[in-house]
Amino acid sequence: MGAAILSDLGTEILIPLCALVGIAFSLIQWVLVSKVKLTTEKHAPVDGKNGFAEVLIEEEEGLNDHNVVAKCAEIQNAISEACGNWFAYSNSFDLHVTGATSFLFTEYQYVGIFMVAFAVLIFLFLGSVEGFSTKSQSCTYDSTKLCKPALATAVFSTISFLLGAVTSVVSGFLGMKIATYANARTTLEARKGVGKAFIVAFRSGAVMGFLLAANGLLVLYITINLFKLYYGDDWEGLFEAITGYGLGGSSMALFGRVGGGIYTKAADVGADLVGKVERNIPEDDPRNPAVIADNVGDNVGDIAGMGSDLFGSYAESSCAALVVASISSFGITHDFTAMCYPLLISSIGILVCLLTTLFATDFFEVKAVKEIEPALKKQLIISTVLMTVGIAIVSWVALPSSFTIFNFGIQKEVKNWQLFLCVGVGLWAGLIIGFVTEYYTSNAYSPVQDVADSCRTGAATNVIFGLALGYKSVIIPIFAIAISIFVSFSFAAMYGIAVAALGMLSTIATGLAIDAYGPISDNAGGIAEMAGMSHRIRERTDALDAAGNTTAAIGKGFAIGSAALVSLALFGAFVSRAAISTVDVLTPKVFIGLIVGAMLPYWFSAMTMKSVGSAALKMVEEVRRQFNTIPGLMEGTAKPDYATCVKISTDASIKEMIPPGALVMLTPLIVGIFFGVETLSGVLAGSLVSGVQIAISASNTGGAWDNAKKYIEAGASEHARTLGPKGSDPHKAAVIGDTVGDPLKDTSGPSLNILIKLMAVESLVFAPFFATHGGLLFKIL
Amino acid sequence: MGAAILSDLGTEILIPLCALVGIAFSLIQWVLVSKVKLTTEKHAPVDGKNGFAEVLIEEEEGLNDHNVVAKCAEIQNAISEACGNWFAYSNSFDLHVTGATSFLFTEYQYVGIFMVAFAVLIFLFLGSVEGFSTKSQSCTYDSTKLCKPALATAVFSTISFLLGAVTSVVSGFLGMKIATYANARTTLEARKGVGKAFIVAFRSGAVMGFLLAANGLLVLYITINLFKLYYGDDWEGLFEAITGYGLGGSSMALFGRVGGGIYTKAADVGADLVGKVERNIPEDDPRNPAVIADNVGDNVGDIAGMGSDLFGSYAESSCAALVVASISSFGITHDFTAMCYPLLISSIGILVCLLTTLFATDFFEVKAVKEIEPALKKQLIISTVLMTVGIAIVSWVALPSSFTIFNFGIQKEVKNWQLFLCVGVGLWAGLIIGFVTEYYTSNAYSPVQDVADSCRTGAATNVIFGLALGYKSVIIPIFAIAISIFVSFSFAAMYGIAVAALGMLSTIATGLAIDAYGPISDNAGGIAEMAGMSHRIRERTDALDAAGNTTAAIGKGFAIGSAALVSLALFGAFVSRAAISTVDVLTPKVFIGLIVGAMLPYWFSAMTMKSVGSAALKMVEEVRRQFNTIPGLMEGTAKPDYATCVKISTDASIKEMIPPGALVMLTPLIVGIFFGVETLSGVLAGSLVSGVQIAISASNTGGAWDNAKKYIEAGASEHARTLGPKGSDPHKAAVIGDTVGDPLKDTSGPSLNILIKLMAVESLVFAPFFATHGGLLFKIL
Repeated sequence: MGAAILSDLGTEILIPLCALVGIAFSLIQWVLVSKVKLTTEKHAPVDGKNGFAEVLIEEEEGLNDHNVVAKCAEIQNAISEACGNWFAYSNSFDLHVTGATSFLFTEYQYVGIFMVAFAVLIFLFLGSVEGFSTKSQSCTYDSTKLCKPALATAVFSTISFLLGAVTSVVSGFLGMKIATYANARTTLEARKGVGKAFIVAFRSGAVMGFLLAANGLLVLYITINLFKLYYGDDWEGLFEAITGYGLGGSSMALFGRVGGGIYTKAADVGADLVGKVERNIPEDDPRNPAVIADNVGDNVGDIAGMGSDLFGSYAESSCAALVVASISSFGITHDFTAMCYPLLISSIGILVCLLTTLFATDFFEVKAVKEIEPALKKQLIISTVLMTVGIAIVSWVALPSSFTIFNFGIQKEVKNWQLFLCVGVGLWAGLIIGFVTEYYTSNAYSPVQDVADSCRTGAATNVIFGLALGYKSVIIPIFAIAISIFVSFSFAAMYGIAVAALGMLSTIATGLAIDAYGPISDNAGGIAEMAGMSHRIRERTDALDAAGNTTAAIGKGFAIGSAALVSLALFGAFVSRAAISTVDVLTPKVFIGLIVGAMLPYWFSAMTMKSVGSAALKMVEEVRRQFNTIPGLMEGTAKPDYATCVKISTDASIKEMIPPGALVMLTPLIVGIFFGVETLSGVLAGSLVSGVQIAISASNTGGAWDNAKKYIEAGASEHARTLGPKGSDPHKAAVIGDTVGDPLKDTSGPSLNILIKLMAVESLVFAPFFATHGGLLFKIL
Repeated sequence: MGAAILSDLGTEILIPLCALVGIAFSLIQWVLVSKVKLTTEKHAPVDGKNGFAEVLIEEEEGLNDHNVVAKCAEIQNAISEACGNWFAYSNSFDLHVTGATSFLFTEYQYVGIFMVAFAVLIFLFLGSVEGFSTKSQSCTYDSTKLCKPALATAVFSTISFLLGAVTSVVSGFLGMKIATYANARTTLEARKGVGKAFIVAFRSGAVMGFLLAANGLLVLYITINLFKLYYGDDWEGLFEAITGYGLGGSSMALFGRVGGGIYTKAADVGADLVGKVERNIPEDDPRNPAVIADNVGDNVGDIAGMGSDLFGSYAESSCAALVVASISSFGITHDFTAMCYPLLISSIGILVCLLTTLFATDFFEVKAVKEIEPALKKQLIISTVLMTVGIAIVSWVALPSSFTIFNFGIQKEVKNWQLFLCVGVGLWAGLIIGFVTEYYTSNAYSPVQDVADSCRTGAATNVIFGLALGYKSVIIPIFAIAISIFVSFSFAAMYGIAVAALGMLSTIATGLAIDAYGPISDNAGGIAEMAGMSHRIRERTDALDAAGNTTAAIGKGFAIGSAALVSLALFGAFVSRAAISTVDVLTPKVFIGLIVGAMLPYWFSAMTMKSVGSAALKMVEEVRRQFNTIPGLMEGTAKPDYATCVKISTDASIKEMIPPGALVMLTPLIVGIFFGVETLSGVLAGSLVSGVQIAISASNTGGAWDNAKKYIEAGASEHARTLGPKGSDPHKAAVIGDTVGDPLKDTSGPSLNILIKLMAVESLVFAPFFATHGGLLFKIL
C-alpha cells in the first residue's frame, strides 16, 4: 500500500492556500474591471465614488433625461458615446441592480423559509433513525467499530445543509452583483474595440468563476476541519454529515435554476412577443416596458442559476467522493491526504484555471470579431491540457500507489494511475461535450446554418429542424458520458464516478468564466441598444453575444454532463448507504421505479414550460396595456413602467416555482417512505438516464435557434444574406424558433440538472431513514 | 394443480373457429360497405361493374371534366352532389389506388430483398450456435431432456420469420385496399347525413380490424400446429422457433411505420407549406399537386403503418407468452390448452369485438356531429367491459386452478385468478391510456383549448404550450403502465407482462376499427374538398375527421402502451434465454447500456424528423415549380402533375428509411456481438423507458395541435370564434403548430414503438447466438 508523498500537514496547508489564491485572483480581476471603467469615464464626480447609493442619484437623473439621451445618440454619435450613453447606461445599470436585487430579496424570503423548514425535516428524519438516541452505535460499514450516534449525524447534517445553502446563495448573489457591475462597462469598452469589450466581459466572468470555485472549496474545507473536532477519526460519520453540504448547495440551485429560469424567460418571451412581433421595435429597445425585466433575467437565470447549479454539482461530487473514501482504505488507514484527494484536485484546478485565464487576458489579445470564439475555445483546450498534468501530479503525490476502494460491500483494489485515468476521462469528456455543443449551436457550422436555411419555408420547418438538431446533438455527449462512466466505474466503482465528475468540474473557474461571459455580453448589447448607441457598437456586442450564446450552451453542456456523473455517484452512494446490494431491473419494484423515473423529467418540463408560457402571457398583457395606455410610449416621449414588469416576473417565478420544486423535493420522500429504497433506486436511475437526454437536447435546440436567428441578422455570408435582412419572412420564422427555444434552453433544459442531482442527493441524505422506516406500502400489503 | 376444464380438442377447435368467425364478419362488413355505395349511386353503368379497370375510364373523364364539376358544385349543390362529385370522387379514388399501390409495389421490392437477406442472417446466426450440427442437444431450461438441434431452431425460426413478415404485409395491403375503397363512399354518404357517413367509415375500419386480428391468429395457430408435426412435445424448441413470427411481423412494421410515416408527412407538410401558407388555397384543394400524395400518405402511414405495428405487437406478445409458457408447468406437463391461453384470449377478443361493433353499427345510431366522439368512446368502454368477462371465462376454463410459471431460473406458483388479474390490468390500463389520450387531444377539453388560446400570441406560444401539453400527457399513461407492470410482474413474472400486453391488445379489432376510421374520414374530407362539394359536406367530414384525430391519437396511445408491455415481456424472455440472472444497474456494463439505450430514441427521432423535413422541402420545391411553370394551375384550368409528387414521397420514404431502419436493426447485433448480453439488456431497458415517453408525448402533442387548429376552424364555441376564422393570425399560428406536429405524431412518435419492440424481439431471436459468441470487445480486453 504505502502512504502518500504529500504529508497531512502539506494537505492542510495546500488546500486553503489554493482557495485563498483563487479568491485573491478573483478580487484582482474585479479591481481590473472597475479600473478599466473608470479610466474610460469622463464624469469626474463618479470617479471618487465607490458606493452604489451615490451613483443611484446620477442614474435617476439619467432616467429623466432618457429621451434627450436617446435622440442625442441618434444625431451625434461621438457625443452620444461620450455622454448620453453614460446616462442611459447608468440608468439601466441602476434598474439592473434594483431589479436583480429586488428579485433576490423577494426570493430570499422564500429561500429562508424553505431552508429552515427543510433543515428541521432533515434533523427530524435523520434523528429518528435511532430514535433520537445519544448513544454511540456500531458503524454501518465496519460493525466492529463504534461510530457517533445517529443524532449527531442529524445535527451535523443539518448544519452542513445550512452551510451549503448559504454558500450557494452568497455565490449566486456575488455573481449577480459582478455581472450587473460589468454589463455597462462592457458596452462602454465596446466603443474602443471588440477586444477591449471582450476582456472586460471575460474578466468579470472570471471574478464569478474563481470566487465560486474558491469559496466552495474553502467553506467545505473549513467545515470538514471543524466537524473533525467532534468526530475525530470517525471518518464515516464525518463525511456522512458532510453530504448535507451538497444537499444545501443543490436545493438552492433549485431556486436559482428553476425560479431564475422562469423569471428570465417570462420576461424575454413576453418582451419579444409584443416588442419584436407586434410593435416591430428592436430587441432591447428602451420603449419596451419588459426590457429591464429581460436584462435582469439574464443575470438571475444565467449567472445566479448557472453558478448555483455548478456549485451544487461541485459540492455534491466532492461529498460523494469523500463518503466513499471514508469507507475505503483511505478512511480505514486514516490516510488524511488521500482522503482529501477530491479537494486537492479542486485546489490544483484553481491554479490551472488561473494560468489559463492569463492566456485570454494577458498572453494573447483578441483583436477582431472572428477571434472571439477561438479565444474562448482555446480556454477550454488550455485548461484541459494543463489540468491533465495537474491531475497527474496530484494523483502521484496524494495517493498511495495502491489502495482499496469500497464497491457495494466489497473492497476493490485500485492503483493510483487508475484513479488518474478516472479523473482524466471525466475532464476530457467535458471537453468533448463542450466541442460537440459548440458544433451544434454555433452558427459557424452547418447544423445551425441548415436550421437557418429551413426558415425559408417558414417557422414550422424551422421548429422541425431545430428539434431534430437537438435530438441529434445528444448522441456524442451520451457516448462521452457512457465511456467516462465505463472507465471510471470499472477502475474504481462509485469513487471513480465521483472523481470523474470532479475531473469534469475541476476547470469550473474557467468554465464559469466563459459561461458568465455570455449573459454579460448579451446585456452589454441590450444597454447599447437602450442607450441608442451606434450600430457599430451594437454589431460588436452582438458578435460578443453570438459567441456568448455558444459558450452558454457549452456551459450548459458541462453542467449537464457533470450533473449526470454526479447523480450517478450520489446514486451509488445512496445504494451503498441504503444497504441494497443490487438494483435489478428485472424486479417489479425497480422496473416501475425506472419507468416512472424516466417520466419525471417530462412532468417537470411540462410544468416549467407551462410556467414560462403563462408568465409570458401575463407579461404580454402588461406590455400591451402600457403601449395602449401610456401616451407617447411608442414615440419615445414617455417612459414605460419598468417596475411593474419586473414585479410580474418576480411574482411569477416565485409562484410558478412551487409545483416543479415540490415535485423534485417530494418525489424521493414519497417514494422512499411508501415504496422503499429499491423503487427509489429505479426512480433515480430512470430520471438520470432520461433527464440527461432531454436536458442536452433542449438546451442545444434553443441555442441553435437563437444563433440561427443571429446568423440571419448578422448576414455575414452570402448564404445568410439570402435569408435576411431583419424583418424578412425567414427572419420572422427564425424569431419564432428563437422564442420557442427560450424556455427550452434557459428554463426546462437546465432545470433538469437540478431534478436529477437533487433527487439523488436528497435520497442519499435520507437513506438511513428510508432503509429503516421506508417502503410502508409494501410492508402493509 | 389439476388440468384445465377446456379439453385439448376443444382448444384445437375453438381457436380457428373464432378466427374464421372474425374473417367472416370482416367480409360481411365489406359487403355492407360496398352495398351502401351502390345503392347511393345513380350512375347505372357503374352498378354492374366490379373491376377497377372499367372504373378507370370513367375517372379519366372525370378528371378532364374537373372544372365543370367544380363549378357545377358551386352553383348547384343538389346536382353537384349527385353527379359532379362522382367524377371527382372516382378520379381521386383512382389516383388513391394507383398512388398507394405504386408506393406499395416499390416498397415491396425493398421489403423482399430485406426479408431474404435477414432470413439468411437468422439462419446463419442461429445455425452457428451449435456449429450447424444436426444432433439433438440437451434442452436449455431442462438439461435432463433432449431437445431438437439448434439447426432446427434456425430453420424453423427462419420459416416463421418469413410467415410473420408475409402476414404483416398482406394485412397492411388489405387494410389499405379497404381504406382507399371506403374513402369516397364515406364522402358520398356524408351527403345523406353525418350518421350514414360515420357508419361507412366505421365499418371499413372494422373490416381492417377484424381481418388483421383474425388473420394474425389463424396464421399463428396453423404455424404452431404444423411445427408440432416436427417438434412433437418439445414445446421449448417449438415456441423458440415461433418467436421468429414476432420478429417477422415487427420488421415489416418498420417499413410500414417509418417508411409510411415519412411518406405521408413529406407529402402533408409539403402540400401545406405551399398550398395553405404560400398560395392560400384550402387544404386538399385539387389544384395542389401534392394533394394526392397527401391522401395516399394517410392510407400508407396511418392504415398500413398502424396495422403492421399492432400486428407486430400482437404477434410478439403472443410469442413471448408462449415461450415462457413452454418452460413453465404448462409445457412441462404438456397441458396444451393452458399453453394456448394467450391464443384463447385473442380468440375470445374477436368475439367480444364483434359484439361491440354491433353497438356502433346496429344497436345505436349516430345522428348528430356531437354524438360521434361519444359513440367511439363507448366502443372502448363496451369492449373493455365485455372483454373483462371474456378473460374471466377463459381463465376459468383454460387454466388449471394452480400452476407454476418460469421466473428467471426458478418456478413461481400462480393461481388462475392471478393470471386473470394480469390480463385484466393490461386491458383496463389500455382503456385508461385511451381516455387520457382523448382528454389531451380532443378539442372538447381544456388542454387543447388552452393550446388554441395560446395562438393569440403567435406560433411560438402555441409551440411552447403544445410541447408542454405533450410532456404532461405522459404522466397518467406511465402510471397506468407502471401499475400494470407491477401487478402482472408480481403475480406471474414475465408471463404476466406478456399476457397483460395481450390483454391490452385483446380488443385490437375494435381498436383498429376506430383507429382506421380516422384516416378514412380525413380522406373523405379531402375528397369532398377536391370534388368541390358544398361546405356542409365538408363540415360533416371535418367533424368526422376531428373525432378521427382523437381516435388516431387513442390508437397511438394503445399502440405505445402495448409496445411498452410487449418490449418488457420480450426483454424478460431475452434475459431468460441469454441466461443472465440479474440486470444490475450498478454494474458498468449495464449502466452504459442503459444510458446509451435511453439515447437511441432521440437519435432515431432526429433521423426521422430530419427525413420528413428534407423530403418535405423537396416536395415544396416541386409544388412551387408546378405552380410557377404550369399555366392555369392556380385558376383551375390546368391539372397538376400529381404523379411526380407521389414519386417524390415514394422515393424519399424508401431512401430516408434506411438510416433509421439500420439503427434499429443493427444496434442489437452490434451491441450483442461486441459488448455482450449484459450491455444489450441495459440498452433494451434504457430505450424502452425513454422511448415510451417520447412516443406518447410526440403523438399527443401532434394530435393536440391538429385539433387546436380544427377547433379554431370549426368555431363551434364563443371562445373558438374569438380566435378564428380561417386565415386570422391565431389560425395561422395554429397551422404552424399543426405542421410541426405532423412528423411528431405520424412519423417519429409512432415509429418509436417499432424501435423498442424490434430491438427487443431481435435480441430475443439472436439471444442464443449472443450468449455463445457475443461480447467480443470485453473478451479481447
